Amino acid sequence: MRLAELGEFGLLAELERRGLAVGIEHDAAEFEDGVVVTQDALVEDVHFRLDWTSWHDLGYKAAAVNLSDLAASGATPLGLAVTLGAPPATELERVIELYDGLNEPRVPVVGGDTTTAERLYLSVTGVGRSERVPGRAGARPGDVLVVTGPLGASAAGFLCLERGIDSPLVTAHRRPPLRLDQGRALAAHAHALLDISDGLAADAAHIAERSGCRCVIEVERVPVAAGVAVIAARLGRDVDELSCGFGEDYELLAAVENPGGFTVVGRCEAGDGVELLREGRPLRLSGWEHFTNS
Amino acid sequence: MRLAELGEFGLLAELERRGLAVGIEHDAAEFEDGVVVTQDALVEDVHFRLDWTSWHDLGYKAAAVNLSDLAASGATPLGLAVTLGAPPATELERVIELYDGLNEPRVPVVGGDTTTAERLYLSVTGVGRSERVPGRAGARPGDVLVVTGPLGASAAGFLCLERGIDSPLVTAHRRPPLRLDQGRALAAHAHALLDISDGLAADAAHIAERSGCRCVIEVERVPVAAGVAVIAARLGRDVDELSCGFGEDYELLAAVENPGGFTVVGRCEAGDGVELLREGRPLRLSGWEHFTNS
Repeated sequence: MRLAELGEFGLLAELERRGLAVGIEHDAAEFEDGVVVTQDALVEDVHFRLDWTSWHDLGYKAAAVNLSDLAASGATPLGLAVTLGAPPATELERVIELYDGLNEPRVPVVGGDTTTAERLYLSVTGVGRSERVPGRAGARPGDVLVVTGPLGASAAGFLCLERGIDSPLVTAHRRPPLRLDQGRALAAHAHALLDISDGLAADAAHIAERSGCRCVIEVERVPVAAGVAVIAARLGRDVDELSCGFGEDYELLAAVENPGGFTVVGRCEAGDGVELLREGRPLRLSGWEHFTNS
Repeated sequence: MRLAELGEFGLLAELERRGLAVGIEHDAAEFEDGVVVTQDALVEDVHFRLDWTSWHDLGYKAAAVNLSDLAASGATPLGLAVTLGAPPATELERVIELYDGLNEPRVPVVGGDTTTAERLYLSVTGVGRSERVPGRAGARPGDVLVVTGPLGASAAGFLCLERGIDSPLVTAHRRPPLRLDQGRALAAHAHALLDISDGLAADAAHIAERSGCRCVIEVERVPVAAGVAVIAARLGRDVDELSCGFGEDYELLAAVENPGGFTVVGRCEAGDGVELLREGRPLRLSGWEHFTNS
């Protein structure tokens, strides 16, 4: 059997079955005593472009995407370990700006390996502690699906950057939100919890697959960020596509019995897969794009 | 100021001075509550060759080099988070062997991200907890330098692999020792502690630089692994070069007031740099090679 036939999910399931790995359904690796660890690498011209972001915002985003995984684990961050690879000709002042951004969320930057590299490379490990990590596998029919904030701004900002359109939404793409308090609140009781990095529909599909249920998204209930509709109209794109079919929103999506104060966007049912409904009728998204290959 | 002028050490010092990073002199990143985190990536044809190692031993080594950094931090391991990148044509059986090796030290493998990659790629994060992390910066004149075991076997094994010589020493290169118990014993009181990955002389230089002292190695006291002298003679290499000037021994080197049961190989003095002495006379190593660029 080759990995191509088995697929990523099949491989991980096989490793778990043999007792060679555990806890694969979580956003972060979970250790004894509630220690959780996340890891993300950002590579120039693969995950970011220096003409689209300042060095400060790049550092902030590298911190924020790891803190988003910690939030999805219900964790309180202990710190970030950063490895930087940079060309020798890089100005110190740029690196200082980068580390200013990394420090902006006020989570200590610990360690600090640096190496020479042809292209800028930034690997961040986030370490935190969580009382309870819901994971993705516990959603049940009858649960409601909630999100922690409006979606689509990062998608619209990305399209503006791509087309050279000046818009305040580009800031949403460069600077993901931090949802650590909300993550801890949801983690206390959620049946499933993750951060929306692949897009609401794709991330709901992760919950459906791991939990063995169907996720139904009621598109008219999905909160859309201010300004997204205007950009969508200008570019001839569908608003639903930007709010449900892109990604990098970095809001949290949870399956819960009780929504508390969070915005309900759908529900879990018996079955499998994801269904998008608008006013009760099935909807197909015109595009299922991702920004990154991560 | 460009990074090329500042150097790695200068950059890290500058980041610490500005409060943008902390704890850079340690082998592992250190967080609140004694949580320590290590990270190492192994890339095919950069850090290993599949014709030189079995998949099992590759997994074992990836685990062992991270556990060595945890040992150098005086830590008890909590687990390993593993990211595997592999070509789609890879056989499942090979991946099972790899994870068998990763699990051989009986430290749980947690998480388990896998991706498609052109070349085999293995990134391991080790997480542990330590009562006291000595770091590299506390050695003082009057300390003795001790090691936890014989050196040179990995160097000799590497040379045998390179030249196609069949020798039991190749196993030493493929399978680093685990020194977790010794690490905890030394960390309780050592002024400086690290693992010998760059070679005894180079790693003593790290202690000298960070501690602001001189490290004197008395070469005749350095324990040389069985069989190394024979291989050195056969290949026309100097035994001291293999035991002090190569690397990947993964024994521990500590600066301590009292050697306890460990083997003394030298001492710390006022001054700077590393001095190698044989019978009291200065010695120059003929080669200062490293296996890897990591």
